[in-house]
Amino acid sequence: MVTAREVARRAGVSQPTVSRVVAGHPSVGPEIRERVLAAMRETGYRPNAAARAMRTGASGNVGVVTARLHNPMYPELLQLLGRALRGAGLRMMVWNADETEGEFALDAALQGMVDGLIFTSANSDSAHLGEALAGRVPVVLINRLVEGWPTDQITSDNRTGGALVADYFLHGGRSRPALLSGPLLPSTIRDREAGFRAGLVAAGIGDPPTARVARFTYDEAFAALSRLLAEGASPDAVFCTNDLLGLGGLDALRAAGRRVPEDAWVVGYDDIPMAAWRSFDLTTVRQPFEEMVRCAVDLLLRRLGGDVAGPASLCLPAELVLRGSSGRPAGPGAA
Amino acid sequence: MVTAREVARRAGVSQPTVSRVVAGHPSVGPEIRERVLAAMRETGYRPNAAARAMRTGASGNVGVVTARLHNPMYPELLQLLGRALRGAGLRMMVWNADETEGEFALDAALQGMVDGLIFTSANSDSAHLGEALAGRVPVVLINRLVEGWPTDQITSDNRTGGALVADYFLHGGRSRPALLSGPLLPSTIRDREAGFRAGLVAAGIGDPPTARVARFTYDEAFAALSRLLAEGASPDAVFCTNDLLGLGGLDALRAAGRRVPEDAWVVGYDDIPMAAWRSFDLTTVRQPFEEMVRCAVDLLLRRLGGDVAGPASLCLPAELVLRGSSGRPAGPGAA
Repeated sequence: MVTAREVARRAGVSQPTVSRVVAGHPSVGPEIRERVLAAMRETGYRPNAAARAMRTGASGNVGVVTARLHNPMYPELLQLLGRALRGAGLRMMVWNADETEGEFALDAALQGMVDGLIFTSANSDSAHLGEALAGRVPVVLINRLVEGWPTDQITSDNRTGGALVADYFLHGGRSRPALLSGPLLPSTIRDREAGFRAGLVAAGIGDPPTARVARFTYDEAFAALSRLLAEGASPDAVFCTNDLLGLGGLDALRAAGRRVPEDAWVVGYDDIPMAAWRSFDLTTVRQPFEEMVRCAVDLLLRRLGGDVAGPASLCLPAELVLRGSSGRPAGPGAA
Repeated sequence: MVTAREVARRAGVSQPTVSRVVAGHPSVGPEIRERVLAAMRETGYRPNAAARAMRTGASGNVGVVTARLHNPMYPELLQLLGRALRGAGLRMMVWNADETEGEFALDAALQGMVDGLIFTSANSDSAHLGEALAGRVPVVLINRLVEGWPTDQITSDNRTGGALVADYFLHGGRSRPALLSGPLLPSTIRDREAGFRAGLVAAGIGDPPTARVARFTYDEAFAALSRLLAEGASPDAVFCTNDLLGLGGLDALRAAGRRVPEDAWVVGYDDIPMAAWRSFDLTTVRQPFEEMVRCAVDLLLRRLGGDVAGPASLCLPAELVLRGSSGRPAGPGAA
């Protein structure tokens, strides 16, 4: 069994330096790091991750649990998180929880592979997981909230975002709004719908005709709105509760011969990069992802530093971004 | 220090069952698994990942190194890989190597966190990594190849794919083809271009006017092709060496007032789901991702099972998928 001492001797460095390289500590320069890694390869040294974690109290890894990678919002969020964590000297390991509900992340935390966890798409039915993790490693939820989770949570103001869209429709003289949405399990979707409906009700407009998908995909959004239109609905504005639904909804309107924005406005939610693409030019409510990510990583670092204050809950403001799908006039100053 | 025996006693199962749960073995039913996890939580048991890996020879984890998550091809590939690995009883951990060149994956392999590695976007300048890893854990490259890596490699026939596009243009009477491409570091791009150019040369057509981006993004593709058009190029067909470039190229043509497909055909590469969206309806060369993923996981499993035969190199066939951007007539049988 090769020891760290042997690696240190061969690399001509101290044993703590070897430990720092193994932990991915940012204080080690690239040349020293390369020498230590070379010595590790030559000797076949395999540091014991869990034992090291218990000794130093830190693996240097942060686990990010994501889902629904077909929604470009999540890859975008992953890239921002990876960059912010790297900036803090931490390494991101990603689990895709589409079918496994984050159990693997729980295993990793129990095994000491990660120092903390960030969830981007938690649901209320993952609640048992939150309890299990609380008090073991720091957990931060970003984007979606789960009521009752004893963890730090960061979101943007989805309820006000939905209300902004209702206001925008009403001030634009839209009198026949429709809704294109999905399952209400995610807090984001519930809040966006609630804000939108409340805004319509306050203006004396009743429940909008609603097309609801079972899964948040372009294909289901296209089919659901096409069905609603075929059944005779004639909306002059459609609020889609995320941008991926917005892209499918926009194409469904066009396929049905409705002109966007002349016959119907379309507004999405999130402001994924694709919303700004020329083929879509989608008006949307922007989530401030960069700031949300910065807050999430800051909170995590404070927890890793030993901060044991009660769970923090941050809600950042949302903002309407006007584009062609709601008739935003092109020209100087157009977004 | 809590032992596995204590967890087993509390959960009312045998000690090997606890080990199987810890390793994520698929043979354990959900009820037993839940009981063991509960006992682990109650006792605060932390299995030692590295020690366990050395004892059993398997962590149950496979590391996937990816990059460029803004290209929808990579999230798509990740979802397929995750599903296939899960089907084989293995867990996927993802590293995004955009800025780190996969060094973290090397660390994880050295630390015994993963039993094997899959790279989706290796470049020839990652070559030292391949050498470092060879012989430690099994490594499989999928999508891109790197000459000289002593590892299993799986790709599709990008050279023939490029040649198919040249043939398709020529048989469709296109006499002024252009190329929209990017850096030649990835083997995929090199091979697609080489096949396309060879096809043109064989037909007596010289080098096509070329717009080349520095990074594979929609925005750069839009800008690069717009510039080529503004400089006077008037292509009647544009080959874009991946679909993301194809979407940007398509929008650039439309923005310049060129009708697609009447004035110019556009053909992409990969067949990402978005290519079939109504706003794009992009003719493209399909990479058989599902089959590539199946082969990659099969190879990895054989290596994990002790197969020490020399590195395998698989090249699956590519296929042209005709859609509206090249005037594929709509109607019954249209793709």
